[in-house]
Amino acid sequence: MYTETFSQMKKQLGQLDKWLGVAAEHAKAKSFDPNVFATLRLAPDQFPLARQVQICCDTVKLAASYLTGKPAEPQADEEKTVEELQARVRSIIKYLDGFSAQDFDGAATRVVSQPRWKGEWMTGADYFMQHSIPNFFFHLTTAYAILRHNGVSIGKRDFLGAQNKRPPAA
Amino acid sequence: MYTETFSQMKKQLGQLDKWLGVAAEHAKAKSFDPNVFATLRLAPDQFPLARQVQICCDTVKLAASYLTGKPAEPQADEEKTVEELQARVRSIIKYLDGFSAQDFDGAATRVVSQPRWKGEWMTGADYFMQHSIPNFFFHLTTAYAILRHNGVSIGKRDFLGAQNKRPPAA
Repeated sequence: MYTETFSQMKKQLGQLDKWLGVAAEHAKAKSFDPNVFATLRLAPDQFPLARQVQICCDTVKLAASYLTGKPAEPQADEEKTVEELQARVRSIIKYLDGFSAQDFDGAATRVVSQPRWKGEWMTGADYFMQHSIPNFFFHLTTAYAILRHNGVSIGKRDFLGAQNKRPPAA
Repeated sequence: MYTETFSQMKKQLGQLDKWLGVAAEHAKAKSFDPNVFATLRLAPDQFPLARQVQICCDTVKLAASYLTGKPAEPQADEEKTVEELQARVRSIIKYLDGFSAQDFDGAATRVVSQPRWKGEWMTGADYFMQHSIPNFFFHLTTAYAILRHNGVSIGKRDFLGAQNKRPPAA
């Protein structure tokens, strides 16, 4: 399931890239600075769009790295424009392209820990299911919700992207 | 992965039940009708909280039903109060308790179709990964975002719930 789930996450990142593009077009049509979007949030004590996108990206990158033992380069979290956020998203899509199904052999039983966990750890299986997947979709959907709340014309189809539907039986 | 993912979804529904409880307490403390929450939305052309909760619940219920061939009773989508929404969520948690790991044998290759797909179909594996999981988290996170946007004091820990962290090695 690791390969399939990362494939789905990669698809969702492609959709996020598209929403950001729609937001930029919306700003252009309404004659306001598209980079205002990077600063918007749904509550004063919630992260703004830029941080939601950064964390969404980091969640996938770190999951792939922890579950395979392959390195992940830290990124500076300095994006301030919609174009920079799109570049960040695309960097993760490219990063995911560097993994094969074999890389995830043994992922479920890997020991995963983060510095702030102070020695506590999770199995790869638990980490992926209880931490990576919900966090990824949390920040992805929050980014979508911030755009949606601020008038960007995107809908559920844009959220899901293409689905592998097959033609009716003859 | 089916059993593990439904187990995670069940945990997330338990968290949703808690957020709704926190929202009710918040309304009580601020002396407004808690059931106003059921009508709130992030954009005028987006579903309100009640519908987000209903679809979130239906997404899990239908996934479990389609992937196992076990029946799912339709529910009327008539919830108007926070308590009724909590009851809906709990009904799904109870429904999920009726499944065993064996029920999901062969789920990946089942033919899944919905009436509005006009004969098109998906494999169980594709349906679950491309439709059920993203839709579930979409509506779950949107429900969270509506509450968060309207002042309910919930945070990321409330979103994720308990994680199976293990103690440091001695």
